[in-house]
Amino acid sequence: MQTVMSAAELSVFLEREFPQVRGDFAIDRLTEDGIVMRLMVADRHLRPGGTVSGPNMFALADVAVYLAILARIGPVALAVTTSGGIDFLRKPEAGRDLIGEARLLKLGRVLAVGEVLIRSEGRPEPVARANMTYSIPPKR
Amino acid sequence: MQTVMSAAELSVFLEREFPQVRGDFAIDRLTEDGIVMRLMVADRHLRPGGTVSGPNMFALADVAVYLAILARIGPVALAVTTSGGIDFLRKPEAGRDLIGEARLLKLGRVLAVGEVLIRSEGRPEPVARANMTYSIPPKR
Amino acid sequence: MQTVMSAAELSVFLEREFPQVRGDFAIDRLTEDGIVMRLMVADRHLRPGGTVSGPNMFALADVAVYLAILARIGPVALAVTTSGGIDFLRKPEAGRDLIGEARLLKLGRVLAVGEVLIRSEGRPEPVARANMTYSIPPKR
Amino acid sequence: MQTVMSAAELSVFLEREFPQVRGDFAIDRLTEDGIVMRLMVADRHLRPGGTVSGPNMFALADVAVYLAILARIGPVALAVTTSGGIDFLRKPEAGRDLIGEARLLKLGRVLAVGEVLIRSEGRPEPVARANMTYSIPPKR
Repeated sequence: MQTVMSAAELSVFLEREFPQVRGDFAIDRLTEDGIVMRLMVADRHLRPGGTVSGPNMFALADVAVYLAILARIGPVALAVTTSGGIDFLRKPEAGRDLIGEARLLKLGRVLAVGEVLIRSEGRPEPVARANMTYSIPPKR
Repeated sequence: MQTVMSAAELSVFLEREFPQVRGDFAIDRLTEDGIVMRLMVADRHLRPGGTVSGPNMFALADVAVYLAILARIGPVALAVTTSGGIDFLRKPEAGRDLIGEARLLKLGRVLAVGEVLIRSEGRPEPVARANMTYSIPPKR
Repeated sequence: MQTVMSAAELSVFLEREFPQVRGDFAIDRLTEDGIVMRLMVADRHLRPGGTVSGPNMFALADVAVYLAILARIGPVALAVTTSGGIDFLRKPEAGRDLIGEARLLKLGRVLAVGEVLIRSEGRPEPVARANMTYSIPPKR
Repeated sequence: MQTVMSAAELSVFLEREFPQVRGDFAIDRLTEDGIVMRLMVADRHLRPGGTVSGPNMFALADVAVYLAILARIGPVALAVTTSGGIDFLRKPEAGRDLIGEARLLKLGRVLAVGEVLIRSEGRPEPVARANMTYSIPPKR
C-alpha cells in the first residue's frame, strides 16, 4: 500500500494532535502494509507486579492502526475507532518497551481493519494481539 | 451474587493497589450482579474534538469488571484480564463523566466474564459497550 | 425504535431469502429495542457431549441482530455483518432450544450494533453472549 | 511447536468425532505454528448473492484453531472454545474454496489463543480475520 505521509510527518502530527499521549508512543518505522510503534514504558503504565496495564496495550494497538491508516490516506481524515478487541497472552517483561506491529488487512472507502501483535522489545513471543476497526469519513 | 467486599472497601483497595489511576475512577454503587463505576472525565482523557479517548473507555470497562469480580471473591485473588472487546457507539458528551454499568455473566472457577454499558452521565443512549474476560487464579 | 416489519413479515422474508437455514431459526417476538429468536436445536447442531456447536450459536446471534435491524429499516436493505464476537459461558442443556435475545444499541446511517444473550429455553443463566456489527448500505 | 498428531490422524479424528461437519472441512497441512484448513464451499454454505455465510467462516476459524491445538496436545483433551471474534473484510469469490491459515499465539496450561486469516483459494487478499480462545482441561 502506498504511503502519503512519512514516519517523521506522522510523528509531528501525533505530537500536535494528541498532546495527552506525548512521551507515551514513538514510531519505529513504516512497513509495507502497516507500521511498527513503541510504548515507551514508564512507571505510570504499570500495574501491581510490574506488568504494563491492559488499557495501555489497547492504546498502543489503537494508535498504531490509526497511524497506519493515516500514513495511507493523509492527516486530514477524521478516522474514528468503531471497535477493538484484544487478547492478553503473556505478562510483559519488566523494564522493556512494548513494540506493536500493526498490519492493515482492509483499507476500504468506509471501514479500515488492522491487526496488531505486541511484544516486549527483543523477545519473540507476543504478549498481546489486537484487532481494531476504524470508520473513514466520506471525502468532502 | 453475594458480595464479600463493600463499595467502600473496594475503593480503599483501588486507591492502594492502583495509584496510577488515582483520580480517574470512582465507584458509584454495587448492584445485584455487578457494579456501577464512573470515569471522572478530565482534560487528560480527551481527544481532539473533546471526546473521551477509546483507551480510557476500555480502562473504565476493565476496572469495572475487575472490581465486580473482587466484590464477590475478595481482594486476595490475582485476577488478570485475558481478553476484552469494545464497540464505540456514539461520541460522549463534553463535560460529563462517563458511567459504566458492569454486569457479571459468569463467575466460574477459572474464568469470569462481564459486560459493560457506558453512558454519558444523565443520558440514556450508550456511548460504548464492552466485554471483558478475567482469569481467576487457583486457590492455594 | 419504530418497526416497519412485523414478526410474520420477517419470517416470510427469512424463509424466502435464506432457504439454507430453513428449519433452524424461528422468530419468537419483536421487542421494544430488538427481537427474540430461537434456534430449534436438532441433531445436526450438536457436538460430542450433546452441546450445541459454537458456530450455531454465532449463527443465532447473527440472524437475530440482522432481523432486529431489518424490522426497523425494511427488507430492501442489503445489510452485511462486518464483525462479531462471542463468549461461550456455559454448556447448553441437552434437549432444549436456544433462545437469543437481541438488543440494538445503535442503528446509525452507516453502522448498526447489537448485543445478544443466549439461554437454554426456560433457564435463567446465559450460555453465551455476543455482539454483532452490521454495515448499512447507503440509500439510493 | 512440536506436534503429536499428523494431518492424517487429525483428519481421522475429525471424521469420527464431528460427523455433523463431514464434507465441510479438510486439512491442507500442518505448519510450524498452526494449520491450514479448507472449507469446501457448497451451496449449503452460501447466502443471497453467492457469498459464503459468516457463521460458516466462523466455523472454519473455530475448527482450524481447535485442530491446531490438538495437533500439539493430542486427541484426548476436551478443549472447548471460550470466545471468538471475527472481522469480515471482503466478499469471498464465488466458486472457490475458503482457505483458513491458523496460527497459535499461545498454548498455555489453561488457555490457548489462535488467530486465523481466511482467503478465497488462490487470492491474496483476506476475506476475514478471526481470533479464537480455547480452554484446555486439566490433565487427570
